[in-house]
Amino acid sequence: MSEHAWLARLGATLGPSSPRVLLGIGDDAAVLAPGPSPLVFTVDASVEGVHFTLDLVDLGGAGYRAFMAALSDLAAMGARPLAALSSLTVPGYGAESDLDTLTAGQAAAAAALGVPIVGGNLSRGPCWSIHTSALGEAAEPVRRSGARPGDSLWLAGPVGLAAVGLRALLGGHAPSSALDPCIAAWRRPVARLADGLLLPGRASAAIDISDGLAQDAGHLARASGVSLVLDADLVLGAVGPELTAGAAALGLDPLAMALGGGEDYALLACAAQAPGPAFRRVGAVEAGQGVRVERAGVAVALPAGFDHLA
Amino acid sequence: MSEHAWLARLGATLGPSSPRVLLGIGDDAAVLAPGPSPLVFTVDASVEGVHFTLDLVDLGGAGYRAFMAALSDLAAMGARPLAALSSLTVPGYGAESDLDTLTAGQAAAAAALGVPIVGGNLSRGPCWSIHTSALGEAAEPVRRSGARPGDSLWLAGPVGLAAVGLRALLGGHAPSSALDPCIAAWRRPVARLADGLLLPGRASAAIDISDGLAQDAGHLARASGVSLVLDADLVLGAVGPELTAGAAALGLDPLAMALGGGEDYALLACAAQAPGPAFRRVGAVEAGQGVRVERAGVAVALPAGFDHLA
Repeated sequence: MSEHAWLARLGATLGPSSPRVLLGIGDDAAVLAPGPSPLVFTVDASVEGVHFTLDLVDLGGAGYRAFMAALSDLAAMGARPLAALSSLTVPGYGAESDLDTLTAGQAAAAAALGVPIVGGNLSRGPCWSIHTSALGEAAEPVRRSGARPGDSLWLAGPVGLAAVGLRALLGGHAPSSALDPCIAAWRRPVARLADGLLLPGRASAAIDISDGLAQDAGHLARASGVSLVLDADLVLGAVGPELTAGAAALGLDPLAMALGGGEDYALLACAAQAPGPAFRRVGAVEAGQGVRVERAGVAVALPAGFDHLA
Repeated sequence: MSEHAWLARLGATLGPSSPRVLLGIGDDAAVLAPGPSPLVFTVDASVEGVHFTLDLVDLGGAGYRAFMAALSDLAAMGARPLAALSSLTVPGYGAESDLDTLTAGQAAAAAALGVPIVGGNLSRGPCWSIHTSALGEAAEPVRRSGARPGDSLWLAGPVGLAAVGLRALLGGHAPSSALDPCIAAWRRPVARLADGLLLPGRASAAIDISDGLAQDAGHLARASGVSLVLDADLVLGAVGPELTAGAAALGLDPLAMALGGGEDYALLACAAQAPGPAFRRVGAVEAGQGVRVERAGVAVALPAGFDHLA
């Protein structure tokens, strides 16, 4: 498919669906109506062989996951999305129908979140890759850097489920009631935009959990110049029995999965009170630096972090 | 280099340099001050083995070219850039110093254009690739679709030089006074932002020439529902003697290079009068459809177009 044919198809599938989109796909750039709030601008990538392989997820799923991962950064800032752009590379072994499948997955995620995809770029490349840029706005964007000692730590959404699901897929485990919710968490994550919109004015700092709770908490602690104390039992309680059951099915430690597993895209916020109904208390903000995990007041060892380029 | 180390370095190199940047690299997303004008939003990709190879340009040059190509789309809309994001894939054979070189090339282009790079993403991948998102604003964005019969066609910047330069590089030709300007045109293109800012209110339609004058004129003609007539001698006159000399050195037809060669990032505009001092008249807008080329009133055959995924 030529880039122009693909853009025409993208335009038909994902064309303007917001009054803020003045000009969608088909010109040199998209045009969006201005608003009074600060703009929030981010990009994320999902690369075949690095973030996914086609024996773990089909291209529709890869497109869906990539879109959710990118929009999660807007959720963490408490931003309302305006529009997204998609830049794809298509390998020589990719058929036209594969590109349709990928585009449909992106479209499904965009529709689920109500975000218009207003443009894109298509290029050949040695593998499939999906680079998603997202633009949003927030009257008071929530940064990583405002946490204050005395705040509580709040978690919205699961952590560790996707990591267990990925291990189930990698190990070729048969579907089971214990593993299915974990596999679904890895395959169909959700950017928690509605929870994020509750953060401005309520949370002093926030981050989304893409690399693992312990590691991302470390980023927030460093940016805020505080110490974060995670309570192991509160974390496991916030995630719920699906994590315990899934981890048990694979002989894994649920706490290690909860602290080290990425790609669930939960939100971690610092606030005096729960910023919204989905947020569960999982710890406290103290003076100092770094992250520690306690169980009944006793320190628990942290798992090693995860960095895509480590 | 970890993604966090790279982002820290990117932040140090390319950090906020505009009063519109409220928050640069280092959080979940960048934050930009709002303005009263419509937003212009675009993405472009440059992939090793597709858009460049490292025997033709070093990684600094690849970064420079990729940034200019992306910002050229804002120029074509008559937009003023606000900020850009960079999403890179780094192959296993890429050294940390290579990443520094690439980043420095992006930084040089961003500095030349005065555009802050406010964020990015770093991932492993099978080759180098550079996906650049650009956000700008324009009170009256110039589209491809407003051209009117009776307008003249205006060209700012060269066409064909970069195509001759690329052929010189691919053929391993020795440097010469005839080929050097063409090689420089391919290696160091310039996004014509200042010329683009003259378009709103003056031009009825515009496009940047990335795929070749004939093909991009075809996009504009289709979007506007008009016929564009390019005058071969006016085109060659607008580009000047460097194209004729470079093409002669390789035994190429300068008109074929001017009509079919991409990646110079000239601007083609439709307007009653020259939109600015860099614009040269190269033809006319008529009722009808398609593009034709004439020399002294006689039709000239068009070269085949160029599509990155054709």
